[in-house]
Amino acid sequence: MAALVAPLCAAGPALMPMPQKVEPASGQLTIDANFTIAATKYSDPRLEGAMSRFLARITRQTGITMAPKKPADAARATLRVECAARGGLYPTLGEDESYQLEVSPQGARLTAATVDGALHGLETFAQLIGPGPHGFQAPAVRIEDRPRFPWRGLMLDVSRHWLPVEVVERNLDAMAAVKLNVFHWHLSDDQGFRVECRRYPRLQQLGSDGHYFTQAQVRQVVAYARDRGIRVVPEFDMPGHTTSWLAAYPSLASAPGPYEVGPNFGVFDGTMDPSREETYKFLDAFIGEMAQLFPDPFFHIGGDEVNGRQWTQSAKIQAFARLHHLQGLAGIQVWFNQRIQRILKKHGKTMVGWDEILYPGLAPGTVIQSWRGAASLADSVTKGYRALLSAGYYLDHLSPARYHYGIDPLDGAAARLTPQQASQILGGETCMWGELIDAETVDSRIWPRTAAIAERYWSAKDVTDPGSMYDRMEAISRWLEWTGVRHRSNYVPMLDRLSGDRPAEPLRVLADASEALGLGPRRANRNTTLTPLNRFVDAARPESESVRALELVAARVVAAKPPAPEDLARLREQFTRWADNDARFQPLAEGNVLLAELLPLSKDLSELGSVGLKALEYLGAGTPAPADWRAEQARELARIQRPNADVVLAAFRPVKVLLDELAKGSQ
Amino acid sequence: MAALVAPLCAAGPALMPMPQKVEPASGQLTIDANFTIAATKYSDPRLEGAMSRFLARITRQTGITMAPKKPADAARATLRVECAARGGLYPTLGEDESYQLEVSPQGARLTAATVDGALHGLETFAQLIGPGPHGFQAPAVRIEDRPRFPWRGLMLDVSRHWLPVEVVERNLDAMAAVKLNVFHWHLSDDQGFRVECRRYPRLQQLGSDGHYFTQAQVRQVVAYARDRGIRVVPEFDMPGHTTSWLAAYPSLASAPGPYEVGPNFGVFDGTMDPSREETYKFLDAFIGEMAQLFPDPFFHIGGDEVNGRQWTQSAKIQAFARLHHLQGLAGIQVWFNQRIQRILKKHGKTMVGWDEILYPGLAPGTVIQSWRGAASLADSVTKGYRALLSAGYYLDHLSPARYHYGIDPLDGAAARLTPQQASQILGGETCMWGELIDAETVDSRIWPRTAAIAERYWSAKDVTDPGSMYDRMEAISRWLEWTGVRHRSNYVPMLDRLSGDRPAEPLRVLADASEALGLGPRRANRNTTLTPLNRFVDAARPESESVRALELVAARVVAAKPPAPEDLARLREQFTRWADNDARFQPLAEGNVLLAELLPLSKDLSELGSVGLKALEYLGAGTPAPADWRAEQARELARIQRPNADVVLAAFRPVKVLLDELAKGSQ
Repeated sequence: MAALVAPLCAAGPALMPMPQKVEPASGQLTIDANFTIAATKYSDPRLEGAMSRFLARITRQTGITMAPKKPADAARATLRVECAARGGLYPTLGEDESYQLEVSPQGARLTAATVDGALHGLETFAQLIGPGPHGFQAPAVRIEDRPRFPWRGLMLDVSRHWLPVEVVERNLDAMAAVKLNVFHWHLSDDQGFRVECRRYPRLQQLGSDGHYFTQAQVRQVVAYARDRGIRVVPEFDMPGHTTSWLAAYPSLASAPGPYEVGPNFGVFDGTMDPSREETYKFLDAFIGEMAQLFPDPFFHIGGDEVNGRQWTQSAKIQAFARLHHLQGLAGIQVWFNQRIQRILKKHGKTMVGWDEILYPGLAPGTVIQSWRGAASLADSVTKGYRALLSAGYYLDHLSPARYHYGIDPLDGAAARLTPQQASQILGGETCMWGELIDAETVDSRIWPRTAAIAERYWSAKDVTDPGSMYDRMEAISRWLEWTGVRHRSNYVPMLDRLSGDRPAEPLRVLADASEALGLGPRRANRNTTLTPLNRFVDAARPESESVRALELVAARVVAAKPPAPEDLARLREQFTRWADNDARFQPLAEGNVLLAELLPLSKDLSELGSVGLKALEYLGAGTPAPADWRAEQARELARIQRPNADVVLAAFRPVKVLLDELAKGSQ
Repeated sequence: MAALVAPLCAAGPALMPMPQKVEPASGQLTIDANFTIAATKYSDPRLEGAMSRFLARITRQTGITMAPKKPADAARATLRVECAARGGLYPTLGEDESYQLEVSPQGARLTAATVDGALHGLETFAQLIGPGPHGFQAPAVRIEDRPRFPWRGLMLDVSRHWLPVEVVERNLDAMAAVKLNVFHWHLSDDQGFRVECRRYPRLQQLGSDGHYFTQAQVRQVVAYARDRGIRVVPEFDMPGHTTSWLAAYPSLASAPGPYEVGPNFGVFDGTMDPSREETYKFLDAFIGEMAQLFPDPFFHIGGDEVNGRQWTQSAKIQAFARLHHLQGLAGIQVWFNQRIQRILKKHGKTMVGWDEILYPGLAPGTVIQSWRGAASLADSVTKGYRALLSAGYYLDHLSPARYHYGIDPLDGAAARLTPQQASQILGGETCMWGELIDAETVDSRIWPRTAAIAERYWSAKDVTDPGSMYDRMEAISRWLEWTGVRHRSNYVPMLDRLSGDRPAEPLRVLADASEALGLGPRRANRNTTLTPLNRFVDAARPESESVRALELVAARVVAAKPPAPEDLARLREQFTRWADNDARFQPLAEGNVLLAELLPLSKDLSELGSVGLKALEYLGAGTPAPADWRAEQARELARIQRPNADVVLAAFRPVKVLLDELAKGSQ
């Protein structure tokens, strides 16, 4: 399979996720203003809407206006969509999402069992389109495709920082573009309750800063997602992470209030009282109302990070635990979960929770989402539950795509499961927690890395080559901007903002060479919800495309004897630019406190440039680099690799490739 | 005045249009999350809306979330807006638009006679904000400001290419940001009739490709503009440029139809029949309906480019002309205009028309818009009419900002007018004709050059230094993106599109060094409304900022003895990049017809890089360049300056600076 896809990749279109089967054919289909699309079998408003959006998208993608005109005869449309049947009106777990796509110079045919499958096929077709020898085109090809996992999700935390509807919607478009099918909406947490509740309006009134989704907006988002083949699973985290609820209704808490929604992050003590019957009455009414709002049969109750302090300190709750023979804090939480599960069942919902909820006594069919490690995944399905992997897919750590890409839901302990057990691992979800994102930066924290993870969930298990992944992910990253996400286009304006009236070019050189630190190393505890996310680190990307390109050049330079002159020129040019950059950066930073924190970083970049140039000299001359020079550079590199101003100077990597080669040559 | 503003400019904030009086003070006002704004005197929904938008804008501009909270005590707001009175609910020609702005470390006070003045002051305040020694700030300053001309417009042609509401609205935001106050909406032309007419619905049904503004949308745009202090003057071009009308109602024409809205540009024969009473009945009903839709007292009837062929060839019209003693074609058009003017008067409107309408017999107060030259401007006011200058402000020619900036409505023949006559020159309008623009590219054809022209209309006559203008215009260009226009952000995606799946960096280097040709040199007659505007020339900008920066460096290098090492390094780096670029561009262009047209251009850029490097060598060595080498380079440069693929390689300019110096040194 991998062998079959290779020629197509080399030839042009970057497909991501890689389809299960790709057979290149010869020739290409011209994409011009005469392009038409029509459904030739089953159709409905959902499919018609998708075809209209498809035309609008490829109009943006090509710059060629494609009128939304229908061909008189559907059978003569350029792209004929043959959808066998409707499938679920609302996307369903386990739906047949397969499709086949055949492109020839005469036209294209997309066949699918369901509308959901057809939607995926349209996205693949859009990825095929690019400039060619006669203008825009799609190469002739035959594709057969279906997902590996039925649950392919993105979790978005809109509690810690508010994200308005348009941000959610553009990310739904990008999700659909890489065939994700579950939007896990983390709607409440300590820092904000984000949905209008009519029965308990103080939830959004006192539990938020005024920013929340009205019920009309929730319905709009659910319909928007549904039209794109995406299920919406709401999460209301309980009994912990509930400060925002308790600020509104302190009687829900295990200890007397008052509670207040504060700007700080972390794990707080405020926890719902599992011993009061009123708690369950409240949650019954609440869940009943939300159950109407969210059509999906799954309902996420969180359940993570209950620190238990309030339960330990409450004589009443301890007495309650003894009365019911509940073992420790876990036993109390199991009691709570079982009560919630009965409420959910009454309202027609199946429980999903983070892996802390995994204790005997949950109803079969419960879905456990593993965030603490892959081990609990196998554990969950061995115990008869269903499971999702999120450990290893935390976007807020800003790990490289290669790291996430290397993690498979069926690796580790899961590799030893029976096929029947393994089938209960439904898939995975990437998690975008909200401590360090806002409407401007969230896209660049989700994309393009989530495209690579989406490939892990969709494509064959043996599609694992990071080199191919990066090449395609970078192309898909550019393509994703046509869906509306702004992970690339917000970059330069954020740098311009930092440099004020002065041209930001030296800042851009520095940013291109830098990679942002994520939660943890960035020490989010110095941040609050009120800290502006307008620093250099917020503009900088998790991974530098241009540094990766230089690493490849540097690797070629040390591998080839002699190195290609254009590779040497490329490195020399870039190193020179780095070496010269600090002199340009310094006047830019003068009198500008937002840039002052970058002065050491800028100096280091120039040093890297100089060292790189010197290393090229040694390599070119074929003379060994003096040992003391090498030792000094090794020390300097070790120092420069350390984070500074919450970013890492990725630029050290190509320089290190050269220094390592010089070290080898001297041994 | 110019002396007073200089220190502020050097220090930081780029103001454009330059206020009439700027007195820098010491210190700065911190702009952080505690920033508040409140009206302390007159207020109304229009001012409140503007203050809310202001907060949202500076939130984007700084990345600091400013809650739309009101201070309990308006007098303690960070920015106090003291508006004396309402002024017109709808902006009025000649309104008092003045304002005063005083910023101190303790707070800021904006005073204005009217809401319109306050709106302008808010925009100035937003331009003051930038990063400083303690974070975002506005420098302490005292500004007194008022416009030089009362009519400062932008004409937008939405007929030849459709531009949807969101494009219009974001351009209204940018117009307001540079204090333009008239949106001249060119709504009908041969290629499209773009407004819903209820009395004559075939106008939009048969006169357009289906794209037109509904009356609800027109009202929305008018309200949007009004809220930003912008009047909307509709233009319905007649009796020529009316093919779209005639396609819908052929009986309006001077010759039998049928007529069809076609894709070609140019001047067509189809002309309204001035001899039929039914024509005026139709126009009376039409204008009556439109008069309700557009509250502005001015109504533009076009009147340009009537080729007269149908009038000459019609025996009936010739007989009509003899009967009424009409002299030639002009006489017939005057008759038509007089009839229209009576209809306009009946509906409470004052006529505006292009300079072809200037003939004796028009009602006093008519406004003549000069597009053919400045001479007719003085002519119009001498004859007792009012006048606007558009000759010299045609954006579609893609002339450099410096060219437009050098044209003043009161120069030339107008300089010899009496003050009373000169006061009848109301101002000017930049014109964005629609042959070569679409929703994606129009912003980059309007901005940032229109900011420089807006300064011509607003600022003192002696604010004319192109160097200061360019420095500020480039800063304002970055700032304007926060208003929502996409003149910068659409650039890279358009290049990415052309390079498909391959990284577009070499294409970007080429585009940064290129300048797009406008209408005329680009030969729009090879284009139609159906030609995709997705070529390199459409992405390329009218002026290259980076080349201008290099020209400045090159000028410093030849002026200084010895040149600054960092200047030499900068030129060497850029020339090296150009020299190496063709080798990188060629594989990118392989098999890509959209890039193939650029191969000669790319080769020329690399040649310029090599020549530049060689020139630097000669300059550095202090040895004269050989005469034959210089002669050869002069020939090459002459060749390279010629347009290619509809762009000019602006990169020749800094190289020419060096070669000219070498030539001097050898004389």
